[in-house]
Amino acid sequence: MSILVKNIFLNNKKRDVYIDDNSFTEISENISVEAEFKIDAKNKAILPSFFNSHTHAAMSLLKGFADDFSLNDWLAKVWPVEQKFKEKGVYVGTKLAVLEMIKSGTTFFNDMYWFPEQVAKAAEELGVRACVASAFVDGMPFPRLPKDSELVKFAYGPHAIYTVSKENLLKFKDLVEEDGRLIHIHLSETRKEVDDSLKNFNLRPVEYLDSFNFLDKNVIAAHGVWFDDNEINILTRTKPTIVYNPVSNAKLASGVLRFRDLVKSGVRVLLGTDGNASNNNLDMFEEMKFAALLQKVCNLSPCLLPASQVYSMATQKAAEFFGVNAGRIEEGRLADFILVDLKNINLFPCYDLISNVVYSARGDCVTHTVCNGRILMSDRKVDGEEKILEEVREFIEKIF
Amino acid sequence: MSILVKNIFLNNKKRDVYIDDNSFTEISENISVEAEFKIDAKNKAILPSFFNSHTHAAMSLLKGFADDFSLNDWLAKVWPVEQKFKEKGVYVGTKLAVLEMIKSGTTFFNDMYWFPEQVAKAAEELGVRACVASAFVDGMPFPRLPKDSELVKFAYGPHAIYTVSKENLLKFKDLVEEDGRLIHIHLSETRKEVDDSLKNFNLRPVEYLDSFNFLDKNVIAAHGVWFDDNEINILTRTKPTIVYNPVSNAKLASGVLRFRDLVKSGVRVLLGTDGNASNNNLDMFEEMKFAALLQKVCNLSPCLLPASQVYSMATQKAAEFFGVNAGRIEEGRLADFILVDLKNINLFPCYDLISNVVYSARGDCVTHTVCNGRILMSDRKVDGEEKILEEVREFIEKIF
Repeated sequence: MSILVKNIFLNNKKRDVYIDDNSFTEISENISVEAEFKIDAKNKAILPSFFNSHTHAAMSLLKGFADDFSLNDWLAKVWPVEQKFKEKGVYVGTKLAVLEMIKSGTTFFNDMYWFPEQVAKAAEELGVRACVASAFVDGMPFPRLPKDSELVKFAYGPHAIYTVSKENLLKFKDLVEEDGRLIHIHLSETRKEVDDSLKNFNLRPVEYLDSFNFLDKNVIAAHGVWFDDNEINILTRTKPTIVYNPVSNAKLASGVLRFRDLVKSGVRVLLGTDGNASNNNLDMFEEMKFAALLQKVCNLSPCLLPASQVYSMATQKAAEFFGVNAGRIEEGRLADFILVDLKNINLFPCYDLISNVVYSARGDCVTHTVCNGRILMSDRKVDGEEKILEEVREFIEKIF
Repeated sequence: MSILVKNIFLNNKKRDVYIDDNSFTEISENISVEAEFKIDAKNKAILPSFFNSHTHAAMSLLKGFADDFSLNDWLAKVWPVEQKFKEKGVYVGTKLAVLEMIKSGTTFFNDMYWFPEQVAKAAEELGVRACVASAFVDGMPFPRLPKDSELVKFAYGPHAIYTVSKENLLKFKDLVEEDGRLIHIHLSETRKEVDDSLKNFNLRPVEYLDSFNFLDKNVIAAHGVWFDDNEINILTRTKPTIVYNPVSNAKLASGVLRFRDLVKSGVRVLLGTDGNASNNNLDMFEEMKFAALLQKVCNLSPCLLPASQVYSMATQKAAEFFGVNAGRIEEGRLADFILVDLKNINLFPCYDLISNVVYSARGDCVTHTVCNGRILMSDRKVDGEEKILEEVREFIEKIF
C-alpha cells in the first residue's frame, strides 16, 4: 500500500507525506508521485498515533456494567460475567475495544487477558499493534506463548502478587531468561494490596518482588499507586517500567501515582487506560488530560506534568519501550499516525496544537487512523464497524 | 415551531415526543400529528440538555493560550490580551463558546464577563439560554443591567472579595433588594485568597462575607475550594449556591471542593466548566466525569458522587436553581433537550445510559440539540458554524 498525504500540517509547517509499504518514505514540501491512496489534508495536522500501555481490551463488553462500586463489590459483580466470555467473548470484546481505539487514534495496546490468541486475532484482523500478555493466576496451566507476528508480540501476564505465588513468579523469570519476552503485572494498585503484602510477606509489594530479584527492565507493572520511598529506590535500581492509569485509579478510588518522585528518580512511566469496565473508555486524549490534571491538583502544582510531557508518554516514550519504530513522524519510521481536524472546535483556535490535543480535544477530532502503512479509519469510518457492534450485541444477549 | 420525534428511547422505553412552540406537549407511545420538523430517532435516546453553572464564555478565544502556568503567571499572560477583546471580541468569543456548548449538548450557561450585552446577543442569536453576570471590579462604573428576555437573564457579577470592596459589595446587595436578581461571584478559589483574607480582614472569605450579611439564596459562588468547617456552617445557614469546577480547579492546581461535607450540610452544589482558558473545553460530559472521579480518588471513596448524582447537578438541580422549567423530559416542561446516538461507541453496549453518559461519552455523542423548542443542531450540524470560526480567526489575527 502507498499513501500520499497532501498539504498536511506537521509541526506548524505545511508538508506532503509519502508512505510506501509500512513506513514514511518521504516528508517534504511538495511531493509528486503516484500513490494508491491520496488524502487531501487541508485543515488537518499529522501526529503519531497513541500507545495504550495497560488495558484489558475484552472488558469493553462490560462498559458501564458496574459503576460506583468499591473494588470488592466491583469484582464480585464483574468476575462471574467474565467467566462466561470464553474464546468467543474475548474475540468480540477485543474487536469492540480495538474499534474504539482506532476511532480515538490509538494503534498499539499492551493487553493482559485470558485467551491471548483471541486478543491477537482481533488486533491483527483490525490492523493494530499489540503486546498481548497471557493472564495467569495460580492453578492455571503455564502458558505456551504463540509465535510473534509483524503486529503482535506476546508476553507473560502473571496477574499480581496476591494471585500468583513466588514459585510461579520465579518460573516466569526462568521463561523470560530463555525467550526475552516482557512480563506484564499489576503492582501496588490498592492500599489493601500493600497491607496484605506486609501481613503475608512482612514486605511491601516492591520489596517482596525484589527479594527474589523479580524486577528488571523486562517487567512492565501497571498502577503503582502506593510505592513508598524505599520502593521507588528499588525501582530506580532494577528498572521496570510503570504504567500510570489515572482514570481507573480515580474511578476505583485506588489512589494517585507519585509521578514526580518516580520520574525524578529516573523510573520510566507510561500511560494506560486500564479496561473499559473501570474507566469507562479507551480514549488516550482523555487519559492524557486526566493524567496531567490529577498530578497538578493533588500536588497543588500547576506546572507539573505539562502537556508535552504527558503527550510523549502516550507516544514516543511508549514506542521506545515496546521497541516499535514509531511514535514520531519522521522519514524511516513506521507509518503509525493520525490526522486531526483543525476545524474541530476543540482544536480551534490553535495557539499550541499539543496543548489543544491534551487539554481540549478527545478522540472525535481524529479523522484518519493509519497503522503500519494501512488506513484503518478514513473520515471517521472504519470498515466493518456496524458488524462488530452487531456481533457484540448478539454475544451479550447470549450471556445475560 | 413544532417538532415530532419518533421512536426515541426515554428511560429505556420507546416513545414519540411532540414539541409545540417551546414545550413538550405530548409524550406517548404513538403520536400521529403533523409537525414542521420530524426526526426519526431510531437508535437514539432523549435526555435533558446541560446547564453549565459557571463560565466565562468569551475566553474561548484564549483556549490553549496559556497552559501549565501557575495562576499568577497565567493571569499575567491572559489579562493583557483580554483587554484587547472589547465588545467585538466578547461577541465573537461568546459565539465560539456557544457553538461549542451546542455541539456538546449544553443549552444554558451562567456567565460572568465584561460587556454583558454582547454575551447576551451571542446567546440569543444562537438560541441558547444564559444568566449573564456583568463582571465588576473596583473602579468601574456600577452596571445598569439591561432588561431580561425570554432566553437571557442578567445578574450582578462582583468579581471576588479581593477585587471588590465591602462598600461596593454592599451596594450590590442594595441593588438586589430592589430587583431580586442573582449575584455571581468567585469565592475561596485558592489558598492565597484565604491567606489574604485572613491577613486583610482577620476572617476567612465566607466569614468575611457573612460579617456584613452578603450571603443569601440569591448568591451563586464559583469554586469554593478552601472552605473550613465553620464556613460550611455559615453556608448552610445563609443558603448561597456553590459551583464546583473540578477541571479548572485541577488544571490551575487550586484544590478540591469538599463535596461530601457541603452536600451533607445541605448546601446546593452545581457544576461548571469555568472558562476555556483554564479548562480547556466547555464539555459538560467531561466535567461530570472529572467531578465524580476527583471526589472518589481524593476521598479514597469509590461510591462517592455516583453518576446519577453528578448528572442531576448538571441538569435538573441547576434548572431548579435558575428557575428554568427544564432539566427533565416531561409534558409541560420547556423543550430543552438533546438526542444521543446509541451507536456511538461510548454509549455501546448500554447497561445503564446515565453511567455511559457520565463515564464514557463526550459531547460528540450528541446528534441533536434543541433549546426552547428550536433545533440548534441537527445531525451534528449547526447553522453558521463555519462563519463563526471565520469571524474568530479574523478577530484573533487582529489582536495578536
